[in-house]
Amino acid sequence: MRISIIGSGNVATHLAAALKNAGHRIVQVYSRVLQNAAVLANHVKAEATDNLEHVKPDADIFIIAVNDDAIGEVAWALAKHQKLMVHTSGATGLQKLLAYAPDAGVFYPLQTFSKNRTVDFSTVPLCIEGSSAGVTGTLTGLADTISKKVYVINSDQRRVLHLAAVFACNFPNYLYHIAQTLLSQHQLAFDLLRPLIDETAGKVQEQLPANVQTGPAVRNDVSTMNAHLQMLDGQHEWQQVYELLSQGIIKMDKDGQADK
Amino acid sequence: MRISIIGSGNVATHLAAALKNAGHRIVQVYSRVLQNAAVLANHVKAEATDNLEHVKPDADIFIIAVNDDAIGEVAWALAKHQKLMVHTSGATGLQKLLAYAPDAGVFYPLQTFSKNRTVDFSTVPLCIEGSSAGVTGTLTGLADTISKKVYVINSDQRRVLHLAAVFACNFPNYLYHIAQTLLSQHQLAFDLLRPLIDETAGKVQEQLPANVQTGPAVRNDVSTMNAHLQMLDGQHEWQQVYELLSQGIIKMDKDGQADK
Repeated sequence: MRISIIGSGNVATHLAAALKNAGHRIVQVYSRVLQNAAVLANHVKAEATDNLEHVKPDADIFIIAVNDDAIGEVAWALAKHQKLMVHTSGATGLQKLLAYAPDAGVFYPLQTFSKNRTVDFSTVPLCIEGSSAGVTGTLTGLADTISKKVYVINSDQRRVLHLAAVFACNFPNYLYHIAQTLLSQHQLAFDLLRPLIDETAGKVQEQLPANVQTGPAVRNDVSTMNAHLQMLDGQHEWQQVYELLSQGIIKMDKDGQADK
Repeated sequence: MRISIIGSGNVATHLAAALKNAGHRIVQVYSRVLQNAAVLANHVKAEATDNLEHVKPDADIFIIAVNDDAIGEVAWALAKHQKLMVHTSGATGLQKLLAYAPDAGVFYPLQTFSKNRTVDFSTVPLCIEGSSAGVTGTLTGLADTISKKVYVINSDQRRVLHLAAVFACNFPNYLYHIAQTLLSQHQLAFDLLRPLIDETAGKVQEQLPANVQTGPAVRNDVSTMNAHLQMLDGQHEWQQVYELLSQGIIKMDKDGQADK
């Protein structure tokens, strides 16, 4: 397909590269900052622009990968082309685009993207929604060219997925940060914890989290938990995190027998 | 070495198997429950006993891998043999053993172990402490036979490591559980999130967590955070978790530029 990418952030960058690799033609890359558009455009052999007025009509699809709160204005500016438009946001309904395009959809890659890190797109779940069966078919076909994990998901489900992703990705990463800071305060290397982090994520690739919960809270080991809270003396917010999550683990519904 | 294993839980099981594989002789396995001792003993071709009085003196080392609060009484019961004794606990000082053994140490594998899941012990950080330079040398030598990641760590540092491990492992697993429950409440498969969990852990294998933080909180995207809190209406504890961790992320010290 002939694709124009609106945006130049992490999602835009990784998605454009994957689509280009799959043999699609990237026509244009738009960013408010021309330099950012140019970097990505150069990478995927496309034209760059920082002016929405200069976005050309000769693409089959506009993929809008900008901040959630800019989706509406971008769609408004591109409405005159009357082309298929999709956004890539987990938190935004399909509805946001319906006023601006005859055919609209969502192309939500459920993954965390960072600069300087390659992602194997074939393993990234792509959550698709279309304004009609025909659009859903077109988008599913496009998604199939870059990922083996394509799901048709409606806007309500996608909002739940996005919320769950915060718990499964953003919050764990913040806890890694607390752990790393604790080690660094005591001159200990973060490398000591990396295999543990890897294995913790590895376990739930096959099993449900409730069945592999370990640690003092699931054992209701009160003396260890109290000792930990004492060690966090003076770090009030981390104490709150420790208490709240430990209480949650103690009360956890287990589908099976948790390993202690 | 000739090794007796006191305990039959996850740490005892994985450690005994790794030591056996490395060519050591496992003499005996003790558990309060004979059946548990027998299962592990059978696996590592050792004798089983459920009576501490029957633990034989002819081992070079007793590895005590029992619940933290049972370490003292086990060490007390084995004191008469006057042999090298180590425990495997992150939260317990070396001191706990010093009254009972001429030579004592700690052999703490910094990993999460579960039944039915094999762990490649060569990648497990082993944190060693000895009551003398000689003991530290012996234990380091033993550790080197099963792991490529051997660290000499004192009791104070080990306590910090253990606390950090709760943040890096036990708490993230609980957050995976919340995410999985949210999906299941909306008939969505946990498989949708597994690649995200894997990649989140994968990112920090090379980088520091502060440099790869993503999500609405690090963008200070208030409208998405409010929408998420509304979706958690009626699940008060998860709302508290969401608010507390989001506030922490918003205030996070970043060593570098976090990717949004």
